[in-house]
Amino acid sequence: MAKIVITSGPTRQYLDPVRYLTNASSGQMGAALAAVGLRLGHDVTIISGPVQVEYPSKATVVSVMTTQEMLEATAEHFKLSTGLIGVAAPCDYMPKVIQRQKIAKVGGTLRLELIETPDIVATIAATKREDQWVVGFALETEDHRHRAIAKMQRKRCNLMISNSASAINSSQTDLEILNADSFLIEHVVGTKQHAAIRIWDAITNYCGVGCRRPS
Amino acid sequence: MAKIVITSGPTRQYLDPVRYLTNASSGQMGAALAAVGLRLGHDVTIISGPVQVEYPSKATVVSVMTTQEMLEATAEHFKLSTGLIGVAAPCDYMPKVIQRQKIAKVGGTLRLELIETPDIVATIAATKREDQWVVGFALETEDHRHRAIAKMQRKRCNLMISNSASAINSSQTDLEILNADSFLIEHVVGTKQHAAIRIWDAITNYCGVGCRRPS
Repeated sequence: MAKIVITSGPTRQYLDPVRYLTNASSGQMGAALAAVGLRLGHDVTIISGPVQVEYPSKATVVSVMTTQEMLEATAEHFKLSTGLIGVAAPCDYMPKVIQRQKIAKVGGTLRLELIETPDIVATIAATKREDQWVVGFALETEDHRHRAIAKMQRKRCNLMISNSASAINSSQTDLEILNADSFLIEHVVGTKQHAAIRIWDAITNYCGVGCRRPS
Repeated sequence: MAKIVITSGPTRQYLDPVRYLTNASSGQMGAALAAVGLRLGHDVTIISGPVQVEYPSKATVVSVMTTQEMLEATAEHFKLSTGLIGVAAPCDYMPKVIQRQKIAKVGGTLRLELIETPDIVATIAATKREDQWVVGFALETEDHRHRAIAKMQRKRCNLMISNSASAINSSQTDLEILNADSFLIEHVVGTKQHAAIRIWDAITNYCGVGCRRPS
């Protein structure tokens, strides 16, 4: 049994008290990975943005709104954990200035300056000890595998899961599991529950977690 | 019995295939207004953005994503209807350019040019016949009543409901019902179900719909 942190769902970056930038991540893949992790006997904490999905009742769920909040909660829980699965889709841009009142329409163009939010997986992986591992997810709309490999190397992940935008808010997924040597371990097509089992198999084989196969 | 159109929920304006601008509108007020409308014997069509709320099964629901799509569906259904309740929170800005591939992070600032989306309530109200009515909603974070009155006059609504950001994604609301002469008809505090009954009472009294009081 190991302590595992899973980031899940989207985050929101508000422009003003009403409008925000986000994406349609549903938390379904995070819920599926948590369920398999629990079945394997792990202690699972989910750091989740706003979602409607039902997480397994045995998981500890920490609710966050922004990417900065997700980073802080993940960093705190990762210190005492063996592994991180970063399946969340954190909003990676935020407005440079957040307006305190709702921006009134004035009939013209609104020029918005967006700055990058912190990269949660890269930040956490840069702090990881020898006995810890980090699994990242890459969502690209073109040149998937090449970009996933570049992300894994830059972010120092132990495994990288490459998927496409079609997986967002869907019960199905189509993803590739890549190891730290950039080799394709497996191409998985099917439900997110099925994919979660295959990803945990790869974690067991490549990240040194002495866990049982899910029953 | 009259044919009524209700717009409900948020809309989304995508920057690229993954990221979008939106707000946290839940569709709860739209669902409550639809339920009361049905109880009064009306034929209710809901034009809704992406929400998780359960709409009454007797309502016809038309699902849309963007503000332009919501406008087109609303215009089509309003032609054959007596009234429109515009309780949706359509995203009122959209990127001038929508990227066909996910915008890659390059470590710097992203300058986004946003343009206004069409104003659904104003556009529909400008086309309304003598026997049709339009009820608008104004969500402001400051100077609520003054701005709601200005919006009603500009948008040519028969009634305007003024509420605040605290109502978003909440089961409770705190709103003011204003008539076309800018007089406060009622200040309503309570559940959205309760507010829906009070708003329908105002519609009956001020918009000339010969409808029974909800039982």
